[in-house]
Amino acid sequence: MITILFIGDVVGEPGRTAVKHMLPELKREHGADFIIVNGENAAAGRGITPRLAQELLHAGVDVITTGDHVWDQAELAPWMESEPRVLRPVNYPQGTPGHGSVVVETPKGKIAVMQVQGRSFIQPPLENPFLISEAEAKRLREEKGVRVIFVDMHAETTSEKISTGYNLDGLVSAVVGTHTHVQTADETILERGTAYLTDAGMCGPAVGVLGREREPILQRFRTSMPAKFPVANWPVRLCGAVVQIDEATGRALSIARINKIVEKPAS
Amino acid sequence: MITILFIGDVVGEPGRTAVKHMLPELKREHGADFIIVNGENAAAGRGITPRLAQELLHAGVDVITTGDHVWDQAELAPWMESEPRVLRPVNYPQGTPGHGSVVVETPKGKIAVMQVQGRSFIQPPLENPFLISEAEAKRLREEKGVRVIFVDMHAETTSEKISTGYNLDGLVSAVVGTHTHVQTADETILERGTAYLTDAGMCGPAVGVLGREREPILQRFRTSMPAKFPVANWPVRLCGAVVQIDEATGRALSIARINKIVEKPAS
Amino acid sequence: MITILFIGDVVGEPGRTAVKHMLPELKREHGADFIIVNGENAAAGRGITPRLAQELLHAGVDVITTGDHVWDQAELAPWMESEPRVLRPVNYPQGTPGHGSVVVETPKGKIAVMQVQGRSFIQPPLENPFLISEAEAKRLREEKGVRVIFVDMHAETTSEKISTGYNLDGLVSAVVGTHTHVQTADETILERGTAYLTDAGMCGPAVGVLGREREPILQRFRTSMPAKFPVANWPVRLCGAVVQIDEATGRALSIARINKIVEKPAS
Amino acid sequence: MITILFIGDVVGEPGRTAVKHMLPELKREHGADFIIVNGENAAAGRGITPRLAQELLHAGVDVITTGDHVWDQAELAPWMESEPRVLRPVNYPQGTPGHGSVVVETPKGKIAVMQVQGRSFIQPPLENPFLISEAEAKRLREEKGVRVIFVDMHAETTSEKISTGYNLDGLVSAVVGTHTHVQTADETILERGTAYLTDAGMCGPAVGVLGREREPILQRFRTSMPAKFPVANWPVRLCGAVVQIDEATGRALSIARINKIVEKPAS
Ligand SMILES: [Fe+2]
Ligand SMILES: [Fe+2]
Ligand SMILES: [Fe+2]
Ligand SMILES: [Fe+2]
Ligand SMILES: [Fe+2]
Ligand SMILES: [Fe+2]
Ligand SMILES: [Fe+2]
Ligand SMILES: [Fe+2]
Repeated sequence: MITILFIGDVVGEPGRTAVKHMLPELKREHGADFIIVNGENAAAGRGITPRLAQELLHAGVDVITTGDHVWDQAELAPWMESEPRVLRPVNYPQGTPGHGSVVVETPKGKIAVMQVQGRSFIQPPLENPFLISEAEAKRLREEKGVRVIFVDMHAETTSEKISTGYNLDGLVSAVVGTHTHVQTADETILERGTAYLTDAGMCGPAVGVLGREREPILQRFRTSMPAKFPVANWPVRLCGAVVQIDEATGRALSIARINKIVEKPAS
Repeated sequence: MITILFIGDVVGEPGRTAVKHMLPELKREHGADFIIVNGENAAAGRGITPRLAQELLHAGVDVITTGDHVWDQAELAPWMESEPRVLRPVNYPQGTPGHGSVVVETPKGKIAVMQVQGRSFIQPPLENPFLISEAEAKRLREEKGVRVIFVDMHAETTSEKISTGYNLDGLVSAVVGTHTHVQTADETILERGTAYLTDAGMCGPAVGVLGREREPILQRFRTSMPAKFPVANWPVRLCGAVVQIDEATGRALSIARINKIVEKPAS
Repeated sequence: MITILFIGDVVGEPGRTAVKHMLPELKREHGADFIIVNGENAAAGRGITPRLAQELLHAGVDVITTGDHVWDQAELAPWMESEPRVLRPVNYPQGTPGHGSVVVETPKGKIAVMQVQGRSFIQPPLENPFLISEAEAKRLREEKGVRVIFVDMHAETTSEKISTGYNLDGLVSAVVGTHTHVQTADETILERGTAYLTDAGMCGPAVGVLGREREPILQRFRTSMPAKFPVANWPVRLCGAVVQIDEATGRALSIARINKIVEKPAS
Repeated sequence: MITILFIGDVVGEPGRTAVKHMLPELKREHGADFIIVNGENAAAGRGITPRLAQELLHAGVDVITTGDHVWDQAELAPWMESEPRVLRPVNYPQGTPGHGSVVVETPKGKIAVMQVQGRSFIQPPLENPFLISEAEAKRLREEKGVRVIFVDMHAETTSEKISTGYNLDGLVSAVVGTHTHVQTADETILERGTAYLTDAGMCGPAVGVLGREREPILQRFRTSMPAKFPVANWPVRLCGAVVQIDEATGRALSIARINKIVEKPAS
């Protein structure tokens, strides 16, 4: 059995610190063999820098996924070529910097991670997420001989995420959504063995709106005037999922949500 | 203490049957004094007819909310004038058929229900949900003397829903979201006493996409070709929330999610 | 020299009748060798049926393009396989019914027509219009030996249309936009010889909104309530463009707008 | 007769210089009594600063309208309170900085200018443009006794603009659209005397995409990668409209488009 721990959109310094601080404990508690973190909001809410990505990798994260914020920090795109463990959505056109999937050798065998981005109410427009993620899953299985495949589906709507789960059911081990920053309560194992959760939720400031300070966002909605939206403060809500997988078949054995409040560690 | 049971978007015949079948048991189990159901998908997924609304009211539902599907059935708009217990979003322009809020006299005092609809990634464009729902909450408190106010926030994005929760915190007893059909796991009581849940989830066919059959929606996403999206079949996932409220102050005492599989009742 | 006459979105019976009635006169007046008509609103505003397409072809239209309304009439998709002169956007996924381009043999040589659909504020989401239309233009030039290529760019935003013009400049003879139903006044020949017009305008009822009756649309905007939007009545505004092309090189020699009121013909 | 000259979205330094340079000649050529300019892209394409607004006013512009870019420059909002001749859309909520309409005394009588912003495919969401612009037009007529009213309708879609024209027909002298930066060819006088044009077009660099450099925008569309979009260079395309109005009734007598290339003036 392989146990994968996934943590949703890490928001700002509090989110990053919470991940690094909690990783040993979470790993132990859940017996995790492999850690995946969505880092698209790690840099003050906007993307992730190479340095911040390296910090997370050094802290024990195995693969970092991103999303629509992937290019917010200009240094990331050139650097991604040299770091296959930091992913951007697979459904960008051919020739795009970086990679949409990666295969990692582990003591328990190969683990693949793929990221795909939706097209409903999310920008920029990308290529067909359904056809491309399915083709990529088949390629990983057939050409690379991988059985354990984890998919981060970064999308706005529940329908596009659920449909991705069904579309990849039996081809991959897990489809877990990100982007809305709110954890959903619909974890399940689909008919052909794929673990599914519409949204993992974020790892960011618990009080606020999606990890950002409450007041400017309220003012924005009330007045339609522009505002800056700084990342809020501790405590952090750390959300994610733990998926247990039969490494021989790639079928999920279980999926459980993680959702906990993390107080600021004493420094 | 007043206990309100809320059930999210009821989808099609399976959803309606599940509500009617489970209502006595749910009422007993949770000690519910008042039942609110979002019925915007009751008529084969598209709106609700006067007849179906009456069936739900006769079955013990006290107030029915709707959403962006409110006008899908043409008979509803004229009929709504005569049935104040079926709501449409409050932030339609003045002169719109129907009502955006209602005050119901109960043995435990007045209970108000309000529905508001968001403006991010949801159609049609309506007037300012923040300013209007806040003004309406104040009007209900000041002019009508109501303390127990339940708000169904029908919106697509988590940010608009969470911000509505904060905006109405302390003014209303509960803000519970609908529309995405997937229950979120973030129930909480906000600082000034308002119970909050981003989405209650639906009451509709469990296997499928948001209560509809899986295959046509998958084909739609894969091919971008049009399709019909019939309501799927039993079993039903019945989702909602139970909110306990101090009727003297209107403050929420607790909020708990409901999320259960309902098998087709023997007829 | 080859002269191509293009007529924008034909709306309903008045639009169809105006095209058929005016075609001989327009052909003579402009010395047109080849007629292309956008027919996406021919069937009461919603798509086009095989029968209506055949009527236009029999009346002298050489190629019919469509757009986001292409599948509104269910019979069209299966029928398109057998009629290569009726196009759907080229940037649908592989395996989609119908064709996104066609090469027609004429006394003056081969003429290709291609249709592409944008992705900004237009549904459904399709594949990359820039990369695909460019690849298709190159294929038509290299594999098919075509020099005269006319592109109907069906899109909402001016930026996506203008950018398509620049992207295909020198590869095709003309890029003319459709979909907004209002003719723009920016006809030009780009640096490398491609004729360009952001929108050709429609061929439909002149008084109304985009060919439809005025009142229901006004009510829709004022109230956010649903309404039916029937096609309006005569007279018709017939809009389009005439492009003269050097058939040896494919370069455009001139582009001129057509914009005239057509009264209902005596029957 | 009052003659109003309107110039569409002024883009960057070339656009501003072209307006200032051409204003005397345009005024003379068209016998203009009153000059209105849309300045929402004056500051390097993003909004307008108080200083740039003052420069235009000093150069002879009577009223400046804006649009969705109105708040791009942070200094504008506080300054607008003191300068009623610079408008923001009228359909912001009550309490928004600045004004949505202004009445100017001229030797030929009062002239009112109003700006309204659409809600289809344009951000941020504002209040109902139809009901609010109609109420404001009536207020200007009844409370202020104004007959000559010019409306800048800033919107993306042709349907929302045309419908605004019909909605205000007979209440105002002219409805001229902005925002798409491409001039439309549909100038007309509606049934009850309102001059109408779907889009005036911009006053900005002629070669490029909506006044910006071509290459970064092409790359953006081709790759879905982010880019900076600098304002392009000379020559400028100066677009607008001249409307002649009977000042006794407010009815439009004529509307004509302006569309000319302006070379960089020798300095
Ligand atoms: Fe995201
Ligand atoms: Fe995120
Ligand atoms: Fe809904
Ligand atoms: Fe719903
Ligand atoms: Fe269209
Ligand atoms: Fe059309
Ligand atoms: Fe604009
Ligand atoms: Fe603009």
